[in-house]
Amino acid sequence: MQVAFSPEEILSTVRAERTLGQTHQTVRGISALKAAAPGDLSFLGNPKYKPEVAQSQASVVLVPLDFVGEPRPDQLFVFVENPSVGLAQLCARIEQSLWPKPSAGVHPSAYVAAGAIVPASATIGPLCVVEAGVRLGERVHLQAQVFVGRGAVLGEDCWLMPGSIVAAECTLGARVRLQPGAVIGSDGFGYEFNQGRHEKVPQIGTVVIGADVEIGANTTLDRARFSRTVVGEGTKIDNLVQVGHNVIIGRHCLVCAQAGISGSTSIEDFVIIGGQAGLAGHITIGRGAKIDGQSGVNADLAAGSFVKGSPCLPYQLEQRINVLRRKIPDLFKRVDALESHFLPSNAEKSSA
Amino acid sequence: MQVAFSPEEILSTVRAERTLGQTHQTVRGISALKAAAPGDLSFLGNPKYKPEVAQSQASVVLVPLDFVGEPRPDQLFVFVENPSVGLAQLCARIEQSLWPKPSAGVHPSAYVAAGAIVPASATIGPLCVVEAGVRLGERVHLQAQVFVGRGAVLGEDCWLMPGSIVAAECTLGARVRLQPGAVIGSDGFGYEFNQGRHEKVPQIGTVVIGADVEIGANTTLDRARFSRTVVGEGTKIDNLVQVGHNVIIGRHCLVCAQAGISGSTSIEDFVIIGGQAGLAGHITIGRGAKIDGQSGVNADLAAGSFVKGSPCLPYQLEQRINVLRRKIPDLFKRVDALESHFLPSNAEKSSA
Amino acid sequence: MQVAFSPEEILSTVRAERTLGQTHQTVRGISALKAAAPGDLSFLGNPKYKPEVAQSQASVVLVPLDFVGEPRPDQLFVFVENPSVGLAQLCARIEQSLWPKPSAGVHPSAYVAAGAIVPASATIGPLCVVEAGVRLGERVHLQAQVFVGRGAVLGEDCWLMPGSIVAAECTLGARVRLQPGAVIGSDGFGYEFNQGRHEKVPQIGTVVIGADVEIGANTTLDRARFSRTVVGEGTKIDNLVQVGHNVIIGRHCLVCAQAGISGSTSIEDFVIIGGQAGLAGHITIGRGAKIDGQSGVNADLAAGSFVKGSPCLPYQLEQRINVLRRKIPDLFKRVDALESHFLPSNAEKSSA
Repeated sequence: MQVAFSPEEILSTVRAERTLGQTHQTVRGISALKAAAPGDLSFLGNPKYKPEVAQSQASVVLVPLDFVGEPRPDQLFVFVENPSVGLAQLCARIEQSLWPKPSAGVHPSAYVAAGAIVPASATIGPLCVVEAGVRLGERVHLQAQVFVGRGAVLGEDCWLMPGSIVAAECTLGARVRLQPGAVIGSDGFGYEFNQGRHEKVPQIGTVVIGADVEIGANTTLDRARFSRTVVGEGTKIDNLVQVGHNVIIGRHCLVCAQAGISGSTSIEDFVIIGGQAGLAGHITIGRGAKIDGQSGVNADLAAGSFVKGSPCLPYQLEQRINVLRRKIPDLFKRVDALESHFLPSNAEKSSA
Repeated sequence: MQVAFSPEEILSTVRAERTLGQTHQTVRGISALKAAAPGDLSFLGNPKYKPEVAQSQASVVLVPLDFVGEPRPDQLFVFVENPSVGLAQLCARIEQSLWPKPSAGVHPSAYVAAGAIVPASATIGPLCVVEAGVRLGERVHLQAQVFVGRGAVLGEDCWLMPGSIVAAECTLGARVRLQPGAVIGSDGFGYEFNQGRHEKVPQIGTVVIGADVEIGANTTLDRARFSRTVVGEGTKIDNLVQVGHNVIIGRHCLVCAQAGISGSTSIEDFVIIGGQAGLAGHITIGRGAKIDGQSGVNADLAAGSFVKGSPCLPYQLEQRINVLRRKIPDLFKRVDALESHFLPSNAEKSSA
Repeated sequence: MQVAFSPEEILSTVRAERTLGQTHQTVRGISALKAAAPGDLSFLGNPKYKPEVAQSQASVVLVPLDFVGEPRPDQLFVFVENPSVGLAQLCARIEQSLWPKPSAGVHPSAYVAAGAIVPASATIGPLCVVEAGVRLGERVHLQAQVFVGRGAVLGEDCWLMPGSIVAAECTLGARVRLQPGAVIGSDGFGYEFNQGRHEKVPQIGTVVIGADVEIGANTTLDRARFSRTVVGEGTKIDNLVQVGHNVIIGRHCLVCAQAGISGSTSIEDFVIIGGQAGLAGHITIGRGAKIDGQSGVNADLAAGSFVKGSPCLPYQLEQRINVLRRKIPDLFKRVDALESHFLPSNAEKSSA
């Protein structure tokens, strides 16, 4: 990351209201208050970290308008309405230099089949494959070594990172971002057991992904047996997640890393699924439900549920059980004691 | 998916016994009874869905010979011996148009090392790499951006999807299918701790995969430390599964998504492993055993076992414990009550 | 694996002190004592397998200097100070033939951007992409279809296997090995919920990997939100592991397959994390801690901890609870019995 901001550039980017102190340092990094070294910019995004400002070695600190305090020597306080927003504005500028808009055009090492529709504004990077019948939207960016199979359709401004794969006939809405190695449209896992063998059930459906969806690195989304596997607009899926065939994920959901969703399950809008959680097939997760990490969900969840555990229970109950769980050895001893005092003839039942 | 079947094509494909009603629609999709819209074909594969036929909007419905009912206006009932088989016949036709047999030959953008054996019937798609000493069987299909390393051997009719990888010296039987991003033959995870460092134990074995095996997207199979990691004939492995070094998987097993099998474990024939289950190393899973999703298996399982939980217990016992688990807070209160009534001197032990 | 050692080659490779018996076989495989067939070499690495030597069909057996026993006809005993070390010496020779040192140079099908620094000793295999501003150390080996993004820096002797990906600005120390499909530098999973939508927080940090690190197949390491995600020197990470943004992993750790580490968590040196374990974000795992497979860790762990379970408890306590767990149905019955004898008015509370 090549960051180099002068104090003047920072003031104009974050729309500073006023400043206190000064620094001769060029800002070359961004860091949390505690971890910052001279040359870093930091920020007070959450009031609970206020005491850390006085100790911070950061050369520039974004602080809210009502912040009271004195900068160190060679330290600049920049007062802004919302330090988190200010930081985001700086990050967006850095992001542009990290990921500069590529120039449009097809790299000579890419293979684009005759008949694929590639607008002049699109960028097809080195060693990509675009098969026949593909339609790419305006400004689509296939970064490098990307595969887009027969008849797939990508909306405008999609960005497919290196090694990502969109299999035949799948559809991506506008601004979909695939992280490296993501696979859209692998076959669903469907077999029928017949005469001692698992025979493959053809997987002839597709995957349809809405606008503004992001899919994590090496995550896999299976195509439907028939009809469609669906991911709704605005949903974000983390790395190494498995989405089975015919799953329907609603809009604006979050699915954290290594979660798995079995075939034909429906997830309504605004659901949050924690890391390594597993969902059985053919169930429905109601709108806005939250599933804690490592949970196992085997049955429908009502809208707004918050669950934890495997198999999952309501969050508060599961937490209560987890507190009691460590007292189970003691509980067995207590029951032993009760029995030995009051049921001497049952003493042989003791846990010991 | 470009489906377009006239009613006549459907009747001949599914070998209809007779029909009732008629439709002027061209069938452009396949859907479950409830989800079907005009233009869709649906089917009554399971008697429990019989009441849904009368509500279905499908233009064509495959029904069993003994089905009694009246089609809507513009709806065609097609009577067949087995609607599921009829559907499979239609799907197989669609599959051929989705995945047409590629023409044989080596794409000019692929790299095939001198001395690799590539029969004239094989298809090497764009940007594949085939290293020296590789032997490909008849009609092998490397779709695109596939890697086949030094000395690997692929049986006839193998189909390796985009981005799949077969490392050096590994062997695939006939008709093996690798989903996108599958990795066969990564190094096993073996180190010896010596003078404060983990030193790599060379992983010089191979992976041997039997005929008719399917490996899911982004699944990883490690090569043996020495000798072989083995997957038996007819076994199907889902996405994002980890198979450690020197694992032996028998024939006709199913391994669901995100399961992990640690090194040197042996799995006999016809075993089913649920999603996200984890198996310790150096254990043996007997023939036909079933391991439920998210289970943890730390010891040998007898043939025909059915287990659940982490660490796993017999399925019925685990289910019973899971029912009682939510009553554990109540159980603590009940023991508190017993103690406070009968052991007043022990009241300070109470759970409260 | 093309192994072919004459007995003479074996004697010189393992530095034999003396021999007993003889064989006319060429050694073509390495195998455990029990599994060995004629033509295999085996070894007595652990005294507990001593009784297996007499039954072994191996043509050559490496035994320790104090071993007492008689070889079969056509069987050679080779006495060495440490049979495991002797085996490792043979394996290292086989490894060299399996993975011969590639010749230096850039394959004509690779794309190397102008301005990338590629020393003459480096090997860039077929269909690799090296973007602008990349700096490769001496003897770096990009095997095939590898991606190295803008401004990334690779230390000397790094080996990146097929399909592995290093995103822009990430840094690898000397001798780092990436298994196939590994992804270094995917975006962290960071969003802010604003007006009903998850808005992406730019992920502008990098990943910094120390010397002698190995990263498993299809494992994903996210770049930091800002600053760095770090993996310390000598740490080994297995397949399909997820490492979130801003995670700091210390030196000489082991992270087994399918484990997941959430964002901003710190792991000190010499920690061992079992397969499928999950770590929450923003916690610290003390030096030398051990986390058993499938554990869930939601809070800091002290140095030297050994934990198990989800949520995790000290290992011995968790094991004790797991033993008692299967007696929980019986415990409920015992409390029922106590109540029915002594609290007849409460009988309706019974578990039945």
